[in-house]
Amino acid sequence: MAGYNHLFVPGPTNVPESVRQAMNVSMEDMRSPSFPAFTLPLFEDMKKVFKNETGRVFIFPSSGTGGWESAMTNVLSPGDKVLMSRFGQFSHLWIDMAERFGMQVDAIDCEWGTGVPVEIYAERLQADKTHQIKAVFCTHNETATGVTSDVAAVRAALDAAGHPALLFVDGVSSIGSIDFRQEEWGVDCAVSGSQKGFMLPAGLGFLSVSQKALAVAKTAKHHRCYFSFDDMIKANDTGYFPYTPATQLLRGLRASLDLIAGEGLENIFARHHRLAGGVRRAVDAWGLRLCAKEQKWQSDTVSAVLVPDGIDSAEVVRRAYQAYNTSLGVGLSKVAGKVFRIGHLGWLNDVMVCGALSAAEMALLDCGVKIAAGSGVGAAIEHFCLSNKTTLAKAA
Amino acid sequence: MAGYNHLFVPGPTNVPESVRQAMNVSMEDMRSPSFPAFTLPLFEDMKKVFKNETGRVFIFPSSGTGGWESAMTNVLSPGDKVLMSRFGQFSHLWIDMAERFGMQVDAIDCEWGTGVPVEIYAERLQADKTHQIKAVFCTHNETATGVTSDVAAVRAALDAAGHPALLFVDGVSSIGSIDFRQEEWGVDCAVSGSQKGFMLPAGLGFLSVSQKALAVAKTAKHHRCYFSFDDMIKANDTGYFPYTPATQLLRGLRASLDLIAGEGLENIFARHHRLAGGVRRAVDAWGLRLCAKEQKWQSDTVSAVLVPDGIDSAEVVRRAYQAYNTSLGVGLSKVAGKVFRIGHLGWLNDVMVCGALSAAEMALLDCGVKIAAGSGVGAAIEHFCLSNKTTLAKAA
Amino acid sequence: MAGYNHLFVPGPTNVPESVRQAMNVSMEDMRSPSFPAFTLPLFEDMKKVFKNETGRVFIFPSSGTGGWESAMTNVLSPGDKVLMSRFGQFSHLWIDMAERFGMQVDAIDCEWGTGVPVEIYAERLQADKTHQIKAVFCTHNETATGVTSDVAAVRAALDAAGHPALLFVDGVSSIGSIDFRQEEWGVDCAVSGSQKGFMLPAGLGFLSVSQKALAVAKTAKHHRCYFSFDDMIKANDTGYFPYTPATQLLRGLRASLDLIAGEGLENIFARHHRLAGGVRRAVDAWGLRLCAKEQKWQSDTVSAVLVPDGIDSAEVVRRAYQAYNTSLGVGLSKVAGKVFRIGHLGWLNDVMVCGALSAAEMALLDCGVKIAAGSGVGAAIEHFCLSNKTTLAKAA
Amino acid sequence: MAGYNHLFVPGPTNVPESVRQAMNVSMEDMRSPSFPAFTLPLFEDMKKVFKNETGRVFIFPSSGTGGWESAMTNVLSPGDKVLMSRFGQFSHLWIDMAERFGMQVDAIDCEWGTGVPVEIYAERLQADKTHQIKAVFCTHNETATGVTSDVAAVRAALDAAGHPALLFVDGVSSIGSIDFRQEEWGVDCAVSGSQKGFMLPAGLGFLSVSQKALAVAKTAKHHRCYFSFDDMIKANDTGYFPYTPATQLLRGLRASLDLIAGEGLENIFARHHRLAGGVRRAVDAWGLRLCAKEQKWQSDTVSAVLVPDGIDSAEVVRRAYQAYNTSLGVGLSKVAGKVFRIGHLGWLNDVMVCGALSAAEMALLDCGVKIAAGSGVGAAIEHFCLSNKTTLAKAA
Repeated sequence: MAGYNHLFVPGPTNVPESVRQAMNVSMEDMRSPSFPAFTLPLFEDMKKVFKNETGRVFIFPSSGTGGWESAMTNVLSPGDKVLMSRFGQFSHLWIDMAERFGMQVDAIDCEWGTGVPVEIYAERLQADKTHQIKAVFCTHNETATGVTSDVAAVRAALDAAGHPALLFVDGVSSIGSIDFRQEEWGVDCAVSGSQKGFMLPAGLGFLSVSQKALAVAKTAKHHRCYFSFDDMIKANDTGYFPYTPATQLLRGLRASLDLIAGEGLENIFARHHRLAGGVRRAVDAWGLRLCAKEQKWQSDTVSAVLVPDGIDSAEVVRRAYQAYNTSLGVGLSKVAGKVFRIGHLGWLNDVMVCGALSAAEMALLDCGVKIAAGSGVGAAIEHFCLSNKTTLAKAA
Repeated sequence: MAGYNHLFVPGPTNVPESVRQAMNVSMEDMRSPSFPAFTLPLFEDMKKVFKNETGRVFIFPSSGTGGWESAMTNVLSPGDKVLMSRFGQFSHLWIDMAERFGMQVDAIDCEWGTGVPVEIYAERLQADKTHQIKAVFCTHNETATGVTSDVAAVRAALDAAGHPALLFVDGVSSIGSIDFRQEEWGVDCAVSGSQKGFMLPAGLGFLSVSQKALAVAKTAKHHRCYFSFDDMIKANDTGYFPYTPATQLLRGLRASLDLIAGEGLENIFARHHRLAGGVRRAVDAWGLRLCAKEQKWQSDTVSAVLVPDGIDSAEVVRRAYQAYNTSLGVGLSKVAGKVFRIGHLGWLNDVMVCGALSAAEMALLDCGVKIAAGSGVGAAIEHFCLSNKTTLAKAA
Repeated sequence: MAGYNHLFVPGPTNVPESVRQAMNVSMEDMRSPSFPAFTLPLFEDMKKVFKNETGRVFIFPSSGTGGWESAMTNVLSPGDKVLMSRFGQFSHLWIDMAERFGMQVDAIDCEWGTGVPVEIYAERLQADKTHQIKAVFCTHNETATGVTSDVAAVRAALDAAGHPALLFVDGVSSIGSIDFRQEEWGVDCAVSGSQKGFMLPAGLGFLSVSQKALAVAKTAKHHRCYFSFDDMIKANDTGYFPYTPATQLLRGLRASLDLIAGEGLENIFARHHRLAGGVRRAVDAWGLRLCAKEQKWQSDTVSAVLVPDGIDSAEVVRRAYQAYNTSLGVGLSKVAGKVFRIGHLGWLNDVMVCGALSAAEMALLDCGVKIAAGSGVGAAIEHFCLSNKTTLAKAA
Repeated sequence: MAGYNHLFVPGPTNVPESVRQAMNVSMEDMRSPSFPAFTLPLFEDMKKVFKNETGRVFIFPSSGTGGWESAMTNVLSPGDKVLMSRFGQFSHLWIDMAERFGMQVDAIDCEWGTGVPVEIYAERLQADKTHQIKAVFCTHNETATGVTSDVAAVRAALDAAGHPALLFVDGVSSIGSIDFRQEEWGVDCAVSGSQKGFMLPAGLGFLSVSQKALAVAKTAKHHRCYFSFDDMIKANDTGYFPYTPATQLLRGLRASLDLIAGEGLENIFARHHRLAGGVRRAVDAWGLRLCAKEQKWQSDTVSAVLVPDGIDSAEVVRRAYQAYNTSLGVGLSKVAGKVFRIGHLGWLNDVMVCGALSAAEMALLDCGVKIAAGSGVGAAIEHFCLSNKTTLAKAA
């Protein structure tokens, strides 16, 4: 089909020109004398994105799921009790992984469209006087429902209970796009991946760990090898890797980190909030609702939009793809057929969002949803113009 | 600035992925034994795009302006009388070139927003009983004003007058996007360039000539070397070039011609007409007018939109660029400050056009033009949904 | 430093132009309706490279090490007895992994420069009347020493003993470059990676398994998730993946498989043998010896060259890199300082090998090794000219 | 055929990685507000490469031939007397162009293998008391024969005669690779192209002019438009171009100029001299001779090697291409069949040259030339090792 494909799934995200250029490379020897001069600053700059000041970041050739597995198998042991919550497909899969690895999972089921139940977590932690709970898990941004949870509040609950449990965060679709503060929030394991806020192709899993997690890892009892901390630490400390790293993606990561530093993390967060605001105004204007139940849960990186009864959201997504060369996210699992998702994270600007909303409007109209053509895009345009004026006024 | 730049100038146009990939190459020897197997089919496939069955196509390392110069210096001689018309910056520049090369130019000045004055041409040709006029020039698509002229009617006028003058067409921003039939319309020299309908970077000038033009060229008296037919013919016939060709662009051209053949010229023309229809409906919905005076002049590749009095169109273009990362075309020469242009040609689809219109809306609003946010995009969306339904119905 | 870097490590290997072009892509939705039409043929074509007719191939976002881990954790259980052998750094690491995963490893230590001790394996298998040995491991090509082992002979030993143990093969630096026949040799798990014979960047781990291995996997007791067969099978059967696949590399893999099919596996093996012959003749001409003890062990993908006493091979490698922009492989572990390695696999031709040998000659000379300048390259040139003549004669 | 193509024609040359990356771009608006911030430094940095301090450089979308035409049509007039010399295909073509443009050419025919006949030029200039000669032409590096001429000596001859003629230099295959000093040598028009020392694809013609040439251009009488100085100056002064520039190549040029500045012009010249020395030693070792008659004529960017009687050099080139994936230059015109050419300019290092020599050796051997395998490469290796030691010693 003519024209570009418009990619608005919540990952992979659009790859910036400079990252694409940086990955257009010949291969290189990952044992060359000059390799550490390239990798050591990479590790340091990764820490800045996680706001991890005292710990370290691991970079695996894997997806984000590999980051999950590394955290679990290096820092926990079979039989460990962990506190988790399920409110979407990705928080579900994390629980599933914990169960497969033999953890004793206290999984709290929440309504999809809500997030981490901080109050219940607080109760459980207060009640756990003997500190049986070894780790508390928090899906920062549930990609399936477009829900952002309050990690700082979970930290507060731990502190209030004086509980020593480790804090694990799935930040795959938040870190680098939504405010995240590993050191300040006392996060022990923060997982992310290359294909979301880092604006790279899929293929790298990131795990940012605290000194506390590193210490615990020394005695953890899972079998592990590929995702082992020990091997990585030993090799990474000299600027190398225990097995062949994905150098092409690492070259792209360099360019991505340079872009992130250039724009500034706080500006990136503000941009995502502004763009997400446009999407939310569009959904309002269409007369539709988000899967996120309350404003406080609304994600700045992905919006899951509920379609009216009688409409199959999968049909909307298919129509957008086939007639308008636009990739929207399907509803997964429990919300299959009920929501379609607009990913609005990464290398994105106002006009790209207007394109996504235009595609959604056309697909919705074609599928028989009664919305006014241009209503959503128009609402977003008003929001963008207004917010840009404010920005300009501030700058002047 | 984050996110892609949105390119909606009337050339260069957006380069398709496969063309971009094809140009990501190591260099090659343009005298290698295998080079002709690459170039000879290129020449043949170029002829198909021009619908030039019996003549030949020249490919110069140059811009489209080089194609103009080649046509003029190979087929005409200093002092030759030529019939031309001016109704925009590019038809003006063509006249200017003819004058510089010592042609005796009968230049008819028309209102900008109209096109080739076929009736006047017809009169002049009828009156020229001694056939002093050696060539008639026709700017098929005036890129500065978004006006398409009727080449077939010019041919009819020549035929009606029984006049042997050559027919020169500037098809830089039409060929490959708007219906053009060199053989059927008896066009002797048709000029185009790589960066419009051919969806390549700038750098190649194309000149498609008839056997009649080739015959005349044998006795034409301009000095010429770089753009000489003779040298090209001699080398091209063996699959080579008289000087180093731009092989990287030729590799891109191969990919571009494959895309054109894959979609089909008639489908491409229909797509451009449909997309242009969306832009025109948007302009109506905004309450603005096109520079093109009548519907018959409206171009399917570029729309020049008049801004209201008191508004500087250059400011609209600047705002779109600086705040919305979107490149629109400025007004040139006589219409500077009065129009902005939306290029809608090449590798383009509905959602891209919606993006262009969104950017235009935001820039217009920011510059104080009173339009309803979403009105233009909404009108285009309605048009696209409707036309897609029709297409689907036909296909079913 | 001016000019290209010359990459002659035994992986990553040089990426062909068409593969590089194919990876120069925008991102795509890995859940799109058209994705299976891309992935399903990929799986089929991967099977052809492994000559796996009845089993299946898994593609993980990982290095080859991930492939090892997947084989071990899905098909074996903690406490399983396995027969392994160590004669280089990579066979050593595989044993290390098996031990970490709690296997009861019967590890036979062999002299570095030899390969899998088929006779000892045969004895052990004959002696194991109760079939305690669950799997026999065979490093097809030991990358550290340039030694190729006889997988068919191991199969024969299993058959002669009537032993049901599974056969695991590390084919990371052989498959796609050296003759390998999974079905014929009854290999149950064959591991490879993207960055060797597959001519891609690092980032994909491949595991090709037999139906027998798949059946055993149903009751194997390791914890596993990221590298789980079950999740992959369920998703792959529909053309999708259980987590985000590395789509950019998969696009490259498509191009790579097309190249492999185009050249033909048997031709590729012959080419590697011919090129390796050139390197071996050069080593002879230098008066040096290979790490491989006998001709039967000599690898067609990598040559480990012993430097004379008093010379540090690491210095040779460093000199080649810093003065001649050429990456050779260092000696690893036991042979550190004693050998340097020339990788001669993947997208390679005669002149590239001559370049590698030239760089090695210059580095050797600079480090004080007494060789005649041009002797090695000259010997290779004679070999190539002769073998090309033979090829031509056959073709005529 | 497997493996890279080895490109050793004297242009196009090998494109550096960073240049290739820089050209992997989306298109851009050449009228954008930010365009001058990109182009104005480009013009300045181009002047540095030409060592043109007080004049200006024009960048045309064309080949180097376009640069010739621009110089001739802007600075000279039909009927002007010019002093030229012919000693190879490119000096011949330049004369041909001058004749076509109606110049009165005093063409001195010299033996191919020699260069500009400075003594004869000196005589002619001394004799021309009335200053009828308007321009003296000097092919700095004759690409067909591998001959470099002495431009400084031509300037000295002009000065000695007190002659005001303009000095035109064809530096297509020298500038950026061989010492050239426009200001110091009083060169008025220096022509080059993108695909040689500038390490870009073909597609840009460069013309660097003195203030004297600019002044003369104001009254020159050739028809011109595409290559007109006036239009370029007017547009370039504001950072724009009179017609669509080849922006993709300009982006590559930026990267190329950065590389040139990074390595340093003097270091680049020294590198070319050193690499050429390796080639010349190889030719000696083969027992063959260069087309260049004396050492003073030997070019540092291209060597034309005479093959023995009874051998067809075209066959050698064909064999190198078909059997060894290596592009060497054929003999042109008078020396067709007699010489093959090795281009050794641009993005090149020692190992690349060894590759070129290896390919040449194999092709020569296959064609029946009696040379000792490895003799040429060996001689080059000795030269490179020695010169690198010297360099290291100096650095230490």
